[in-house]
Amino acid sequence: MRDAYHDELRALTGRLVEMTRLVRSAMSRATTALLDSDLPLAESVISRDKDVNQLCEEIETSIFGLMATQQPVAVDLRTVITALRMAADLERMGDLAVHVAKIARMRHPDSAVPAEIRDSILEMGQIAERLVTKTGSCILTQNAELAQELEQDDDHMDRLHRRLFRMLLSESWEHGIEPAIDITLIGRYYERYADHAVRVAQDVVYMVTGSRVGE
Amino acid sequence: MRDAYHDELRALTGRLVEMTRLVRSAMSRATTALLDSDLPLAESVISRDKDVNQLCEEIETSIFGLMATQQPVAVDLRTVITALRMAADLERMGDLAVHVAKIARMRHPDSAVPAEIRDSILEMGQIAERLVTKTGSCILTQNAELAQELEQDDDHMDRLHRRLFRMLLSESWEHGIEPAIDITLIGRYYERYADHAVRVAQDVVYMVTGSRVGE
Repeated sequence: MRDAYHDELRALTGRLVEMTRLVRSAMSRATTALLDSDLPLAESVISRDKDVNQLCEEIETSIFGLMATQQPVAVDLRTVITALRMAADLERMGDLAVHVAKIARMRHPDSAVPAEIRDSILEMGQIAERLVTKTGSCILTQNAELAQELEQDDDHMDRLHRRLFRMLLSESWEHGIEPAIDITLIGRYYERYADHAVRVAQDVVYMVTGSRVGE
Repeated sequence: MRDAYHDELRALTGRLVEMTRLVRSAMSRATTALLDSDLPLAESVISRDKDVNQLCEEIETSIFGLMATQQPVAVDLRTVITALRMAADLERMGDLAVHVAKIARMRHPDSAVPAEIRDSILEMGQIAERLVTKTGSCILTQNAELAQELEQDDDHMDRLHRRLFRMLLSESWEHGIEPAIDITLIGRYYERYADHAVRVAQDVVYMVTGSRVGE
């Protein structure tokens, strides 16, 4: 019975890592769709989000099954409960990629991103991808040190987010209100995405050590 | 032992209801702080958020204790796992009230809200309060029908949110970019707050019936 339990736990880890891959790909495609005004790509992010949701449901079902049949205690209990929370955060990251894609779709064939903002958005997209890639490695390797690296990347994201506001508020902003609203929301989506990625990594630390970090 | 378990469950329900009260009060004060540029009130929202976080931690500790000692299965297991998720949503609602209060603090002694937007913000604040009050009743009474009412209030919130964007984008908007950014974020915070309130109510339905609604 305990072997079945550990097989199930391994499968669970695999599903969580797969979720990081899906939401990384979703945000990567959403960023490109936004910068290239690529409607089919935006649509693909929106339509494929159901794969993320389904994986999240599979994880929940598997955890409920585990808890009902194996009645884990102590460390095992902590592991499965934390995995539930991780799946919920990853699912939310998929939603945030969809929000970015929907702005790209709404403005198509125009671009929601004025030329002078493109570099910042590209960089936020790259940091988002780097963060979630590291989150995936954290889950796979259960490496608590890697989780600390994520917090630095998250600080970088926060700096870019503040730079975005400064650009919107600068004298030279000449695009008016609508793009300012779009960029405000887009900035918030990347920042939240990064936040969730860090939370998932912190949950890995909690799983491994039993101590909460950085909250 | 089962009596101790049900006492603990009742205490858990009480704590969740208390969380709805705290985050209702937080958003109510945040809305007033925003509309009246009331700095001490804004500060009170920000400093008292730790009470919400502490209650959330108490709930988590109590649930982990319950699971370790009582090893609940089936309906009982569903109940405690769902309660964990509800506490996390309520904790997030407290954060969103803090975000609103921080915008009030940042713009003080000015107001972040131009005159023609005040009514909309006031109404969004009132709907937010109504929603979370109903969420509290849902938790207390386990009334699944009440949960459906919440979805109507949430639709109302979404309409107000769209109206906010229309006002920002109208020809008559003369306040420039900074207030537009503030209002975009504020609108998003109320909308997310409402969303979490609905999710908590949906979780009550899930606890009672075992079926997910509205997701």
